[in-house]
Amino acid sequence: MVLLDGKKISNDIKDEITEEVKKMKANGEKVPHLAAVIVGNDGASLTYVGSKVRACERVGFESTMVRMSNTTSEVELLDKIHELNDNDDIDGFIIQLPLPKQIDTQRVLMAVNPDKDVDGFHPTNFGKMALDMSTFIPATPFGILELLERYGVETRGKHTVVIGRSHIVGRPMSILMGRKGFPGNSTVTLTHSQTKNINQITSQADIIISALGVPGFLKAEMVKDDVVIIDVGITRVPDETKTKGYYITGDVDFENVSKKASYITPVPGGVGPMTIAMLLKNTLLARENKFRK
Amino acid sequence: MVLLDGKKISNDIKDEITEEVKKMKANGEKVPHLAAVIVGNDGASLTYVGSKVRACERVGFESTMVRMSNTTSEVELLDKIHELNDNDDIDGFIIQLPLPKQIDTQRVLMAVNPDKDVDGFHPTNFGKMALDMSTFIPATPFGILELLERYGVETRGKHTVVIGRSHIVGRPMSILMGRKGFPGNSTVTLTHSQTKNINQITSQADIIISALGVPGFLKAEMVKDDVVIIDVGITRVPDETKTKGYYITGDVDFENVSKKASYITPVPGGVGPMTIAMLLKNTLLARENKFRK
Repeated sequence: MVLLDGKKISNDIKDEITEEVKKMKANGEKVPHLAAVIVGNDGASLTYVGSKVRACERVGFESTMVRMSNTTSEVELLDKIHELNDNDDIDGFIIQLPLPKQIDTQRVLMAVNPDKDVDGFHPTNFGKMALDMSTFIPATPFGILELLERYGVETRGKHTVVIGRSHIVGRPMSILMGRKGFPGNSTVTLTHSQTKNINQITSQADIIISALGVPGFLKAEMVKDDVVIIDVGITRVPDETKTKGYYITGDVDFENVSKKASYITPVPGGVGPMTIAMLLKNTLLARENKFRK
Repeated sequence: MVLLDGKKISNDIKDEITEEVKKMKANGEKVPHLAAVIVGNDGASLTYVGSKVRACERVGFESTMVRMSNTTSEVELLDKIHELNDNDDIDGFIIQLPLPKQIDTQRVLMAVNPDKDVDGFHPTNFGKMALDMSTFIPATPFGILELLERYGVETRGKHTVVIGRSHIVGRPMSILMGRKGFPGNSTVTLTHSQTKNINQITSQADIIISALGVPGFLKAEMVKDDVVIIDVGITRVPDETKTKGYYITGDVDFENVSKKASYITPVPGGVGPMTIAMLLKNTLLARENKFRK
């Protein structure tokens, strides 16, 4: 069994990006600049954005955190987005979700200039991805592809089962694994809340990507020998014995499933750390205008 | 076994659209206007565009056929597209494919204003579809959804297997059948040229949508009892005994598979006629500005 070590790989990627930034500086070029907009005071959101800002510092990017109050109107947020779209110094930006309920998330995400959409959530970028064109890939799916690629996990002709059809993980992952190229060329089954015979389906899978958010959902008897396991579930389970008052766990019964798996991601330290690394990668691609028309 | 009669249903849809157009006229409103651009003299393309123009006449739409020579440059075609984008009298338009090889198809399709993209091929529309937003759905997948809906074929929790990952049928169909709502909520497996154990997969399917283009590919021993069969394959097989010199056949061994199926589309007369009906439907939606921001 090989552990897909997202902590190590994400550090490798950050080191590579740091080198790129050094070269840019040495050439007198502007370094990549990421902005993050956060509306309100949600604790988890502040933590996530804080991590993103620190990751920018780590690789030498400029970063800007835009904080807006919980009572921000949709128009005010749209104005801010137009300002960031028009600001040539900002290469890419993200709108931290969730947004307060007075704001239509879909309308807000549609307002982001696709050339600066480093989260890959804009329909134009999502459509390009689904139509095999080059574009920003949402950070978590991008991180999973990167893990599979760097560990040389064979995906061609394999049966990949994706659990969960969210817009940010399951849906894009199901599309990406079925595209031509590597990683890809899998036969892909997308399962979700309406799926009936989930055990029967997972037990036929060569690769399982679980993004359900139910701790310990995937058990050893649901998988075959030598399965590849990508666990995207991140759930905080309350635990008074921990300093933080909780521990983090995935969708997979790691102890037992890992005995059958050929490759498996741990939680924490698997897919999680990859997400921020790929956001940085997307920001670098934005700086280089990789996908601009 | 119930025949999914695309010829009948497409006529019903055309009748419904005709009624809508009559109402528009009675209200003194402009009727929908579809333009079709054809570059070169490909016989099949001319036939298809001819059918689309005749279908417009049938329902009372205005139509314009724009013919350009085989030696048209990409710039000339892009100019024509910008002209159609800017022409308020044109509600929707299509670029008949394939295009001559001096023209980059992707760049051309990207130039179409998404609000007039009644083929649903623009990445922005494709992305909206994949993100569960309202938009133009490509005509063939839209026609398949319509058939399933009008015959009340249960799709929720069913295992749908799609054969072929083309941008115009397989890929969008795999996305649509897994979306929430009806028809949808299926567990979807997308298979393609790299799929290894296709027989094993099709034999587990409740619904099979085949868009492969290989006559007689899907045989009775590959499907289970009561399967629902949607045959999107349309292949011309040379046959001197026919007046046209060929006959049309699908991917499915109809004679034997139909004995096991609960529902099945014939070829011809199944999915084929639905495609033009749904192009008309999209043009009506464009006229009504259904998806305009």
